[in-house]
Amino acid sequence: MGDKTHAKEMTALLVIDPYNDFISEGGKLWDRIKGVAEGNHCVPNMLRVLQAARKASLRVFYALHRRYRPGDYETWTYIVPVQRAGWLSKAFENGTWGGDIRSEFAPQPGDIVVQEHWCSSGFANTDLDLQLKKHGIHKLIVIGLIAHTCVEATVRFAAELGYEVTMVKDATADYSDEMMHASLHINLPNYANSLVTADQVVDTIGDL
Amino acid sequence: MGDKTHAKEMTALLVIDPYNDFISEGGKLWDRIKGVAEGNHCVPNMLRVLQAARKASLRVFYALHRRYRPGDYETWTYIVPVQRAGWLSKAFENGTWGGDIRSEFAPQPGDIVVQEHWCSSGFANTDLDLQLKKHGIHKLIVIGLIAHTCVEATVRFAAELGYEVTMVKDATADYSDEMMHASLHINLPNYANSLVTADQVVDTIGDL
Amino acid sequence: MGDKTHAKEMTALLVIDPYNDFISEGGKLWDRIKGVAEGNHCVPNMLRVLQAARKASLRVFYALHRRYRPGDYETWTYIVPVQRAGWLSKAFENGTWGGDIRSEFAPQPGDIVVQEHWCSSGFANTDLDLQLKKHGIHKLIVIGLIAHTCVEATVRFAAELGYEVTMVKDATADYSDEMMHASLHINLPNYANSLVTADQVVDTIGDL
Amino acid sequence: MGDKTHAKEMTALLVIDPYNDFISEGGKLWDRIKGVAEGNHCVPNMLRVLQAARKASLRVFYALHRRYRPGDYETWTYIVPVQRAGWLSKAFENGTWGGDIRSEFAPQPGDIVVQEHWCSSGFANTDLDLQLKKHGIHKLIVIGLIAHTCVEATVRFAAELGYEVTMVKDATADYSDEMMHASLHINLPNYANSLVTADQVVDTIGDL
Repeated sequence: MGDKTHAKEMTALLVIDPYNDFISEGGKLWDRIKGVAEGNHCVPNMLRVLQAARKASLRVFYALHRRYRPGDYETWTYIVPVQRAGWLSKAFENGTWGGDIRSEFAPQPGDIVVQEHWCSSGFANTDLDLQLKKHGIHKLIVIGLIAHTCVEATVRFAAELGYEVTMVKDATADYSDEMMHASLHINLPNYANSLVTADQVVDTIGDL
Repeated sequence: MGDKTHAKEMTALLVIDPYNDFISEGGKLWDRIKGVAEGNHCVPNMLRVLQAARKASLRVFYALHRRYRPGDYETWTYIVPVQRAGWLSKAFENGTWGGDIRSEFAPQPGDIVVQEHWCSSGFANTDLDLQLKKHGIHKLIVIGLIAHTCVEATVRFAAELGYEVTMVKDATADYSDEMMHASLHINLPNYANSLVTADQVVDTIGDL
Repeated sequence: MGDKTHAKEMTALLVIDPYNDFISEGGKLWDRIKGVAEGNHCVPNMLRVLQAARKASLRVFYALHRRYRPGDYETWTYIVPVQRAGWLSKAFENGTWGGDIRSEFAPQPGDIVVQEHWCSSGFANTDLDLQLKKHGIHKLIVIGLIAHTCVEATVRFAAELGYEVTMVKDATADYSDEMMHASLHINLPNYANSLVTADQVVDTIGDL
Repeated sequence: MGDKTHAKEMTALLVIDPYNDFISEGGKLWDRIKGVAEGNHCVPNMLRVLQAARKASLRVFYALHRRYRPGDYETWTYIVPVQRAGWLSKAFENGTWGGDIRSEFAPQPGDIVVQEHWCSSGFANTDLDLQLKKHGIHKLIVIGLIAHTCVEATVRFAAELGYEVTMVKDATADYSDEMMHASLHINLPNYANSLVTADQVVDTIGDL
């Protein structure tokens, strides 16, 4: 095996929260991200990156927010605002369409779907770090929702835990342009090794 | 509120792997632990401690081993012996009777069932630490299976992460007396703040 | 003991990176934060909050960035931009004045100075979470530098790990108003339970 | 680069607690481990493995127990027995000969000395996992002290966190043969991928 094989084996695609509630017409949060998401073609770009990754046989991981279940949060002594908001909205409710992954993004055999997380980072209190190590992954290509919460949290944790990240800046969206800007231009450049377009990353993946 | 209320609020019962495969006649691993488990009345003792905890309104947490699902481990580059053994045995298979919690130990509303773990520690790569913190828990009473693997691993992690543990030494079992001895007499005294009998802990819980 | 005593015992002040390089005239990074820091009286506010915490006998914890030492980063295969920048700037160099804590903020006996961190979060790869648990802390009052990197990273991790945070918004600073805004108005409201002024928190601490 | 190069690059030697207090004549704990350590030639074997690793340019990591410092533990609300014992013994006291690494084992330039740990696992609340990832390490060869506490704890954590371990069974020691047996024959076979002699591992390293 040569370097190229190894580069491919140590790189994975990480898909964050491709729930209907976020990215499908009729989803609970779609109306709030629609403006940004349609503006940068977020969903089609996510799909193109996913398809390129599958074609190149990159391992695909899913980091998913806790799907709301009755009883969640009720017994907690301590809670933070983003959790209280989730409790109120019951977004990604377990067993409902909103809590299903949008069909084109459904996990395939061989994909790794990690434990659901309770706040914003796909790494916190889950088996994401373990699963990446079990597969020998050191580099992540990140797509998904939404930029300044779950995506940024996951990229920040990835950096803290030793991973290198390629962030696909037009395969994410947010509630406002200001939030996108804060994430993509102020914070992520400190933690992601590169920020690229879907076009660029599809080319790169093809060359792996 | 007085100190007593606080002592109670910060203490929880942690039940480890009360699966049929471990502690029910006909379970895949029951024949291997039966000798020790019947000798120390492990299952009735576990049940008495659980009932005492419920009566005293102690919060009950469940730490559970990964229930085997098709595809598990197959894509891993790295694996350790205890995982390879689980892969072979398919113990606690998801959707089967063996992977169900023995009926008397079924979680009740208000109990916290944390994410399943992949190796032996209930803390590693799960939300157990988070859930304990969210409920203000600092002290754990531990019962369950089996002593030198999942129980010891979870108690060791509890100690490393800052918790104080009361280990109920006749509410656990193992494949051999030698393994029980190694766990209860050699290792756990370093990491558990006390090792007590079910009789003793039932009294203590009643006084909380 | 009553509830008030418990509220006090479970709350700590967390001071982030009060290095000369950040907040003293002549420090390597002072010129970059001076505009914001002088505008909101960051350093005097940090000092007032610290003094109020000491007067009220709140436990004080220090989360500190890795002080640069020769050899750091040189052998790493993987590195992220914020680490590469630190490698270049040699900020907080160990054994130099810039890497000393500004004198008014020097730790006192009984304070807890945790292991230095390698990226931005005071929690990642350190004993901060352990030390907080060992002292029974569930709530943090956060002050220090700089808002959108180490402060935000530490507050995000605190939220992910189960802590409640009070962020003191005029006891932090940043390289630009835009960065302050992104941190204080876009991101931290999701993760900090309250954002208050130094005046407000000094009052609150006095009432604990 | 071929597979062999990669095997070498992803393997490291992990040296646990080679303090004078443990393995030097006159050390606080030497008299307690001397019987086992002299019986299996632990110290010469540790040294041979270290030298073989250096000759083969394997990266060397040191996992070290907290060196006792005045004030340690005094403010803790929660403490576990192994920590209380360390507090009493003041083993590995910072700034004393007992807390120095035995001279033949002194870290060399390019070695990675991770943050000291507070309990038994070299991974818990330290940067060991990060440093291993930063260097692309997936496999550990483990030597050091003592078998049933720090060594076993570190190997258990390594397994939980996704690493593969080769344990060198005659390059460790313990307070009694029974403790050695519990660790090497009952527990470590579940978590270490192989248990080998110093002779065997020196050969293996030479072939990397």
